[in-house]
Amino acid sequence: MIQPFDDTYFMKRALQEAESAYEKKEIPIGAVVVINNQIIARAHNLTETLNDVTAHAEMQAITAAANYLGGKYLIDCTLYVTIEPCQMCAGALFWSQISKIVYGARDEQRGCIALNTKLHPKTVMTGGVMAQEASQLLKQFFIEKRSE
Amino acid sequence: MIQPFDDTYFMKRALQEAESAYEKKEIPIGAVVVINNQIIARAHNLTETLNDVTAHAEMQAITAAANYLGGKYLIDCTLYVTIEPCQMCAGALFWSQISKIVYGARDEQRGCIALNTKLHPKTVMTGGVMAQEASQLLKQFFIEKRSE
Repeated sequence: MIQPFDDTYFMKRALQEAESAYEKKEIPIGAVVVINNQIIARAHNLTETLNDVTAHAEMQAITAAANYLGGKYLIDCTLYVTIEPCQMCAGALFWSQISKIVYGARDEQRGCIALNTKLHPKTVMTGGVMAQEASQLLKQFFIEKRSE
Repeated sequence: MIQPFDDTYFMKRALQEAESAYEKKEIPIGAVVVINNQIIARAHNLTETLNDVTAHAEMQAITAAANYLGGKYLIDCTLYVTIEPCQMCAGALFWSQISKIVYGARDEQRGCIALNTKLHPKTVMTGGVMAQEASQLLKQFFIEKRSE
């Protein structure tokens, strides 16, 4: 069966990254950056491994994508991320001038929507793609963590 | 003459970092992180050199300070930064739970105050320390850049 290059296809790749984080006991959030239907960066949360609050999936994906493109702006790129970006990541995405952000599940407490973080005027954001899977993985992680 | 360890003393160190950025043709913003009157991280903006929008002075100072401390939280630390942090950097400082932020000059357009970025409840922020010097350096940079 041929898989179309749609939002679900790329969000599945971001979810695979989130699962990689889970296996490392990191909060399971993953991201990929896509240009012309090609994945140019994949990353997952590594805040524990790197002892660094800035090591969110999105931040690393932005850095890796810019590195691949050889320029710091992510024009014509789409970021797929399993959970809605936080203020820091949305702030970084602002500077990157990325064209599109697609998130999975909302983060009602600390997400950029609730906290009203300013996106670049060139950036479109949509969400709810595989939200159930993304939030289920996160819930499972915290249940497991609490029972440790 | 003995120099006291006050805000001006540490902001001067942050300004030296900003001058290092200037010499590299980077937007001249510098930062240092201090704990118990000791500088544990110094950094300046490197977005052009690294081709990376996330390479603000504060982001690198946060990463370096956490690396020095061996933990990701910057409790009991103070960040001195020559210009008010942006949304991204304020968002990162939120996650770091840093105790204090001291900035030099305001950024009325893209600073975290104008954009209402949420700081951690444990964080105190003050500003205006050597503001004139910090903003003068920035102005001079952009005048020079425009005349190139």
